[in-house]
Amino acid sequence: MVSLDDLKALAVRTQTKIVLLVIDGVGGLPRSTDGMTELEAARTPHLDALASRGNLGLADPVAPGITPGSGPGHLGLFGYDPLTYRIGRGVLEAVGIDLELSERDLAARGNFCSVDAAGLITDRRAGRIPTETCARLTPLLEKIQIPGVQLIVRPVREHRFVVLFRGDGLEEGLSETDPQQVGKLPLAVQAAAANAERAAGIVNRFVAETKRALSEEHPANMILLRGFSKYPNLPKLTDVYGLRAAVIAVYPMYRGLAKLVGMQGVQTGDSAADQIATLESAFGDFDFFFVHVKKTDSAGEDGNFDKKVSVIEEVDTLIPRLLALKPDVLVVTGDHSTPATFKAHSWHPVPVLLLSKWCRPDGAPRFSERECRNGSIGHLRAAELMPLIMGHAERLAKFGA
Amino acid sequence: MVSLDDLKALAVRTQTKIVLLVIDGVGGLPRSTDGMTELEAARTPHLDALASRGNLGLADPVAPGITPGSGPGHLGLFGYDPLTYRIGRGVLEAVGIDLELSERDLAARGNFCSVDAAGLITDRRAGRIPTETCARLTPLLEKIQIPGVQLIVRPVREHRFVVLFRGDGLEEGLSETDPQQVGKLPLAVQAAAANAERAAGIVNRFVAETKRALSEEHPANMILLRGFSKYPNLPKLTDVYGLRAAVIAVYPMYRGLAKLVGMQGVQTGDSAADQIATLESAFGDFDFFFVHVKKTDSAGEDGNFDKKVSVIEEVDTLIPRLLALKPDVLVVTGDHSTPATFKAHSWHPVPVLLLSKWCRPDGAPRFSERECRNGSIGHLRAAELMPLIMGHAERLAKFGA
Repeated sequence: MVSLDDLKALAVRTQTKIVLLVIDGVGGLPRSTDGMTELEAARTPHLDALASRGNLGLADPVAPGITPGSGPGHLGLFGYDPLTYRIGRGVLEAVGIDLELSERDLAARGNFCSVDAAGLITDRRAGRIPTETCARLTPLLEKIQIPGVQLIVRPVREHRFVVLFRGDGLEEGLSETDPQQVGKLPLAVQAAAANAERAAGIVNRFVAETKRALSEEHPANMILLRGFSKYPNLPKLTDVYGLRAAVIAVYPMYRGLAKLVGMQGVQTGDSAADQIATLESAFGDFDFFFVHVKKTDSAGEDGNFDKKVSVIEEVDTLIPRLLALKPDVLVVTGDHSTPATFKAHSWHPVPVLLLSKWCRPDGAPRFSERECRNGSIGHLRAAELMPLIMGHAERLAKFGA
Repeated sequence: MVSLDDLKALAVRTQTKIVLLVIDGVGGLPRSTDGMTELEAARTPHLDALASRGNLGLADPVAPGITPGSGPGHLGLFGYDPLTYRIGRGVLEAVGIDLELSERDLAARGNFCSVDAAGLITDRRAGRIPTETCARLTPLLEKIQIPGVQLIVRPVREHRFVVLFRGDGLEEGLSETDPQQVGKLPLAVQAAAANAERAAGIVNRFVAETKRALSEEHPANMILLRGFSKYPNLPKLTDVYGLRAAVIAVYPMYRGLAKLVGMQGVQTGDSAADQIATLESAFGDFDFFFVHVKKTDSAGEDGNFDKKVSVIEEVDTLIPRLLALKPDVLVVTGDHSTPATFKAHSWHPVPVLLLSKWCRPDGAPRFSERECRNGSIGHLRAAELMPLIMGHAERLAKFGA
């Protein structure tokens, strides 16, 4: 794969506009009745017309057989090999609730839990306390004083919360405190390397203070922490390609992921139509737009084939508005497959459609997994798409003389 | 990608003959009138017959989206991953004028420029002096005496020239002297690492002496140097595959590139027919023949669709003579695409045709980008072709037991 350093050396600034439309989990599997996937069952005249004029292909989000989470799925689409660039669980939870992260942050995913008088864990999820209880308790933890460290503790859902330890010299590489079974004491955090010793000490002190702060609470009288991770200092799209990039996403996690690579969040509404309206109004202000449609993935996870079909059809009706903006490059794809028959993210490659005036048209009759198999983009890794997009956008100089 | 070390370990010597016919920039884009690419518009009955009997595919010269220069484009075809094996600008300019390079050479691309009495640059190209003036001035620079270093300074075209600093311990990793704008002094060369300090000192001394040598000249009274690069010590085809390889190219740059990987230059005439005649007479003397047809690329860069079509048709008429030689493996492809509509090298994958008696025939009706999309070679990197060629030539032993 071409390194980001090489791409940076080749990048040139032009006036071209790029739209990356991600239909989350769009890749599907055949239903039993007629062997059609969600994309094949959907009525998508506009996407089909693009398939005829543009280029198709299949992309493995990470590598063949590997099912990606949302983090790696999107990093790949943004041009970052997910096997090289990794995002820890704590950071992902933090961006998922719209927390702004800085380079001085060490993030962790927390669970409230229950312990007995001897400190032994009796319930690793504190009876799944309501989110409101979680939101009442996190301020108690945020009040804990640790010299040189600012604590940011925020509720997520039910017993889940996020902690940011903000300070200097807080390195990742810490073991988790969850022993993964009841009847045991929470574990002390251990540093994998010497440079994480300071962080380990601070986390252990925080956990000890938390135990005191929650001593009168029930059932959430203790916490478990895992997924300690630093803000991933990813090269930004601005630095690599000189792109002014915007994210138009309804859900905070996708905005957060996009911000990690230097995209700017643009406020939008709840529907795909709202997102296209946002795209229309922001079109003059940026070079690159990542538009994230979520509901295909949710429908796939629910096993709701028909719902997923109808979301795809809704997206299709919006394509003419998108084309009216005349983007120089338009890519329609997914961050991974979420087949309704599988009811979860899967490892299947995702269909890719790319349109620019520099395409040798594939002339395909439909935008579908089947047609993408024979497309001229071929079968590649998702992270290879971004250089291809930049090529079509005439934003890369010649490599070598 | 299979490493050259692995390939070397597998290589066996056989009596098979291989012809690699490179139609420079052959890949195209559809013209507006009928949507046909140059290859599609060309009447190519002989190539089409080969497409039916052989295998087709698409190759990315470097990687998806990356537009190659001539250096990387050819290195890929010769089996060298262009992202790993890089050729500097100075070396490329030197081989482009048929200079023989040695491992003791540090090459640089030079421009004559104009400076005022204070030494500030007034014209970075010295008014684009005629090539004859350049040729009169370069001997003045070649006469400069620097102990332990032999200077070879040769004109290229207009204000452009090449310098070879020949000596021991001259490493690359030098900054350029061109400040990229007028009104500034030429920069002193700086070494990126300690091992290039000696080279930096010698180059700076050469530049200082040059200023004195040119003091009476006008407008070319100073020089700018860039693209400092060592002779790239590439593994040779002889060493890797045990191949006696020949290059049959009209233009020196392609001969030079081929010599860098151990091919032997064979004198030829100006036309493609001359080149085939050369192939015929040299056929007994080598195992591997790289035949380079240039004019498709020039026509593409000129935006001359019809001319590119006619060069392709001319090549097609020569195919029967080529087949009469009964090469064991024949490959027809390009080093990159130069679509006439794009008027420049582009990133589009190149069509590949491979014929040997060991093909599972694709049965394609034409040799075209469209047909290559569905060929059995698939969509690969250009550097992966060479092992495939060697396989078909029965020149690779079994890998592993």
